Amino acid sequence: MTPVLDGGITAPAGFRAAGVHCGIKASGLDLALVVADASSSAAGLFTTNLAQAAPVRLCRDHLERTGGIARAIVVNSGCANACTGDEGLEVARAMATETARAVGCPVEQVLVASTGVIGVSLDAGKVTEGINAAAGALRREAHHDAARAIMTTDPWPKERAIAVDTASGRFHVGGMAKGSGMIEPMMATMLAFVTTDAAVDPPLLRRALIEATETTFNAITVDGECSTNDAVLALASGASGVAIDAATLPIFVEALREVCGFLALEIVRGGEGATKLITVRVTGAATYADARRAARAIANSPLVKTALHGGDPNWGRLIAVAGRAGVRFDLDHAEVRIGPVTLFADGRPFDDRAPEAAAYLQGTTLAVAVDLGVRGPHDAEIYTCDLSADYVRINAEYRT
Amino acid sequence: MTPVLDGGITAPAGFRAAGVHCGIKASGLDLALVVADASSSAAGLFTTNLAQAAPVRLCRDHLERTGGIARAIVVNSGCANACTGDEGLEVARAMATETARAVGCPVEQVLVASTGVIGVSLDAGKVTEGINAAAGALRREAHHDAARAIMTTDPWPKERAIAVDTASGRFHVGGMAKGSGMIEPMMATMLAFVTTDAAVDPPLLRRALIEATETTFNAITVDGECSTNDAVLALASGASGVAIDAATLPIFVEALREVCGFLALEIVRGGEGATKLITVRVTGAATYADARRAARAIANSPLVKTALHGGDPNWGRLIAVAGRAGVRFDLDHAEVRIGPVTLFADGRPFDDRAPEAAAYLQGTTLAVAVDLGVRGPHDAEIYTCDLSADYVRINAEYRT
Repeated sequence: MTPVLDGGITAPAGFRAAGVHCGIKASGLDLALVVADASSSAAGLFTTNLAQAAPVRLCRDHLERTGGIARAIVVNSGCANACTGDEGLEVARAMATETARAVGCPVEQVLVASTGVIGVSLDAGKVTEGINAAAGALRREAHHDAARAIMTTDPWPKERAIAVDTASGRFHVGGMAKGSGMIEPMMATMLAFVTTDAAVDPPLLRRALIEATETTFNAITVDGECSTNDAVLALASGASGVAIDAATLPIFVEALREVCGFLALEIVRGGEGATKLITVRVTGAATYADARRAARAIANSPLVKTALHGGDPNWGRLIAVAGRAGVRFDLDHAEVRIGPVTLFADGRPFDDRAPEAAAYLQGTTLAVAVDLGVRGPHDAEIYTCDLSADYVRINAEYRT
Repeated sequence: MTPVLDGGITAPAGFRAAGVHCGIKASGLDLALVVADASSSAAGLFTTNLAQAAPVRLCRDHLERTGGIARAIVVNSGCANACTGDEGLEVARAMATETARAVGCPVEQVLVASTGVIGVSLDAGKVTEGINAAAGALRREAHHDAARAIMTTDPWPKERAIAVDTASGRFHVGGMAKGSGMIEPMMATMLAFVTTDAAVDPPLLRRALIEATETTFNAITVDGECSTNDAVLALASGASGVAIDAATLPIFVEALREVCGFLALEIVRGGEGATKLITVRVTGAATYADARRAARAIANSPLVKTALHGGDPNWGRLIAVAGRAGVRFDLDHAEVRIGPVTLFADGRPFDDRAPEAAAYLQGTTLAVAVDLGVRGPHDAEIYTCDLSADYVRINAEYRT
């Protein structure tokens, strides 16, 4: 077991952070800065949404131009700077330029992220002021401020850091993330940032990030909505002196997965209106894609999510979603389990076990499982939350 | 314009109906019977869900065996008889047998439908009693009882009847339907029944039903859930003496479309927790499939549905869904309109118009439109409702 540390994004050696209030949000921290002491390997994964926000466009461009090198990440909350046209791209560029000036690095070595309302202009003046205040406040101890500064409707900040011992020494991985609506990442999640002091060259860092993301950020959903701003950014300072190569890559991927997995589940736990964390497991699928697709369909089903919210062991809804998910499915051999209770198997219901399942559903960390009945060897897990009246309230009132 | 009539499912000549209480639900009518005076042309469209309920299996089988001939439709509410194994199929068969006996027709000429909770056994004794009571109560005037007897969480019964004048005389089309959760039909809707006194042979009736359904029942969604029991059944008695052939088919399709369209919108208006009827129009798509897919994605987006519920002109959510819908999309030329108000065009927002859009959203019948920006010639419309806290309440408490 790898020891869990305090320290979040700055737990790895070679990083400082800051979180300040610059007036994009009416109150609270709204601008975060993460800076590496020297140029670091960098990798990014971004939303597959075709309506890509200005900061996403900028990050793709910068990572391509540098081949995967960065010094700083600047993030604002309260405004997504998405669907804001050429003017929005200008503001994203201004954020990078101002950060580069304050940190003392080439502008291409700055990565930018934004989160908040779509289609509203981001105030360049406020952001510039914020960047300068943050640059002056950079400290290793300020990781928690940074984690708080990237929140929108998140009920709490999300941070994780671990130490990993290897034959060639100890390295660290740290991270922070934010949710909590418009979450079904596909290729990345809303916003997550990971640092390490391992020495990893950019292509290897990218490969490790893709692998770690598949079963973490890409395996969660809150509301099935893939955002315009999703981004996972990773920086590797190398300051630990521990070098990652093809041989030690699995150790590094596992460490990334541990941090990303914790942050991903935190996003689900803190999903808009969520009261329960639910693991949806699909087994017996003909292909991994089928397993994943069925699990995702169940995890996004409003009828499943409301039933689990109400503690109703309405297993028929799980079967109904599996049947409409567009995957190979055989009702006569399908199975449904809610926690440890099998409610449907071999084509027939065991509804007398419903009270036992109802008791299980009183918990706040739940597992449901569906076997597709086609005797395939593949399975998949997707993590989701319940759908509550609070989700509706939060999103009906978001801007009003 | 075709005149709208009272009379619902029995407005066409040659049909009688009944609705009775037989104890499947604790209170209220729960069994409907629709009977033709003589064997009639029949057609059915059924759910694409692979977890098909027993009555759906039975209907497919009977329609295949008769080549599209039926005398009676028996429907119960309160129990879907889905995922109930061989025993459930036995109960569906018993319903057909008992109805055939009471009506005096071959068992293959009886169609069966069920709606309600999935995975609970249907009580054969209660249903048999109900069928006999209904057979004794058959009247042309009881169409409204039948429409009420097929309701589950529907807030009101849904009926429509029209008269159509042609060169060879007048014929009628009548129908009834029920929603109101687990609604995204794909191939049919939850339950809808249409009758006509036109003379239409079974293949032509089927073809007309498929055409009419495409832009009506297959163009609605309440919650994106395709049920295990969806069915649209049509009976044509021929009692008007007006024969439909290839030449007059368009008139007949249009008449079917008018009745099915009204009933489909009634299902959306009466969707679980719905307070607004919303038409989602997508234009400028490269293909019809793209237009339809994008419109469906928007119509099922919880963030769009909650924003419209709250009267928030949060147009960025519409763009975000279009961008993730998996269709060809160009942000630089996309457009969003809420009612008559253009809020995004040519890659830039017009957020100063938000108050005007907010005022429009106070209405209860709304239209939103997205142009995908790829200058294609295709468009599509999908009809949906808003997502309210009541939807959550209804579905979290459904069985508890």
